[in-house]
Amino acid sequence: EVDTMLPFILAICTVLSVVHGQDVAVVGFSAGIPETKTIAKDEIVKFPQVFANHGNGYDNSTGIFTATKPGLYYFTLSAVSQKQKAFGFKLYYNEAHTFKIYGVGSDPSVMGANSILLRLKSRDRVYVKTFFESHIFGDSEGTYAIFNGFLVTL
Amino acid sequence: EVDTMLPFILAICTVLSVVHGQDVAVVGFSAGIPETKTIAKDEIVKFPQVFANHGNGYDNSTGIFTATKPGLYYFTLSAVSQKQKAFGFKLYYNEAHTFKIYGVGSDPSVMGANSILLRLKSRDRVYVKTFFESHIFGDSEGTYAIFNGFLVTL
Amino acid sequence: EVDTMLPFILAICTVLSVVHGQDVAVVGFSAGIPETKTIAKDEIVKFPQVFANHGNGYDNSTGIFTATKPGLYYFTLSAVSQKQKAFGFKLYYNEAHTFKIYGVGSDPSVMGANSILLRLKSRDRVYVKTFFESHIFGDSEGTYAIFNGFLVTL
Repeated sequence: EVDTMLPFILAICTVLSVVHGQDVAVVGFSAGIPETKTIAKDEIVKFPQVFANHGNGYDNSTGIFTATKPGLYYFTLSAVSQKQKAFGFKLYYNEAHTFKIYGVGSDPSVMGANSILLRLKSRDRVYVKTFFESHIFGDSEGTYAIFNGFLVTL
Repeated sequence: EVDTMLPFILAICTVLSVVHGQDVAVVGFSAGIPETKTIAKDEIVKFPQVFANHGNGYDNSTGIFTATKPGLYYFTLSAVSQKQKAFGFKLYYNEAHTFKIYGVGSDPSVMGANSILLRLKSRDRVYVKTFFESHIFGDSEGTYAIFNGFLVTL
Repeated sequence: EVDTMLPFILAICTVLSVVHGQDVAVVGFSAGIPETKTIAKDEIVKFPQVFANHGNGYDNSTGIFTATKPGLYYFTLSAVSQKQKAFGFKLYYNEAHTFKIYGVGSDPSVMGANSILLRLKSRDRVYVKTFFESHIFGDSEGTYAIFNGFLVTL
């Protein structure tokens, strides 16, 4: 009978977390680079334009997201190349690499996008690094390069 | 020990569920364009093929998602170009532009994809607009152009 | 009085969700292909590299995700082409096709990415199939081809 009660209890917890706001709210951030930029090899990519930072896990001065609570997180990354120039971004989970995005336009710009689910412990860090000197195109009227992350479940 | 707490927890939960009501359903929609199409500049892009519309926030006759409750939402957008023709889509949050996707194939078709987290108030609108005359490729056997959105947390 | 109860109730809920694990936990999986590969036409694509498999819905020996509970799920898919070679992947919901991703680099590699929300019943299956012989590029230092899915709401 404990098991049949659980969904009910969790639903109530959801209501409570909703009603009582920030203390128990889900973590989520979204940040972009709204300009054309060249980023050196093996550098951490900083996304200065913060669209959302629920829980303040993302630090746009360092480019690093630090988990404030453990859980299963979803991360996405996208960017667009400059004309005839390439970019290569890699997502790191602490010191471990996870996924890559890549783009190069022989003539036009080309987009790359990828995403992953990662189980994080408190204080684990997730961030993006170039794996070669990267040339991204940017536009103040609509951002291409965006780094998102949010908690899916504890 | 957890089990002995249960009657007490359930009593509280029952009271709370009455007090705070039942409105815990998450909002989420997913809609696509399953055909080749040319869309004029600065037009709202309509995604007629509705895969899901939990909460009925998305109106496929206008192309506009209207938040039925406030919260942190995740939106994604993708499309593929026609051969040697380009598309450019921009995601709007009310009257403000947020992100872009872009694709043009010098020879083949090229995909673009992007996503963002936005904090919405009730009745805020999110939709997609072309930023130049856009030529997308479509296929009734598997959709390329898809616009998704769902509530991550209130 | 509700507020003073909150920390206690939330602590219990957290313990319960941890103790009872799988029954109430949100489902989510993430799996990739970290190598260059050719996959025959109309074959189910297997993603052997499991990043997360919360709820064990994804079977990397078959490539098939089977819903262990009903709900609204979010699925994403991405991959990158080999030089001058194409890939075409289609996401299936049971026997029905849903979305496609596609990429071919006339000179460089090109990425494709797409995502969808689907309402699943228990035991519904979601998987990826090639729609022509597909050549994907892979890299053990950062995966390009990734298939993700997670439960958004019951």
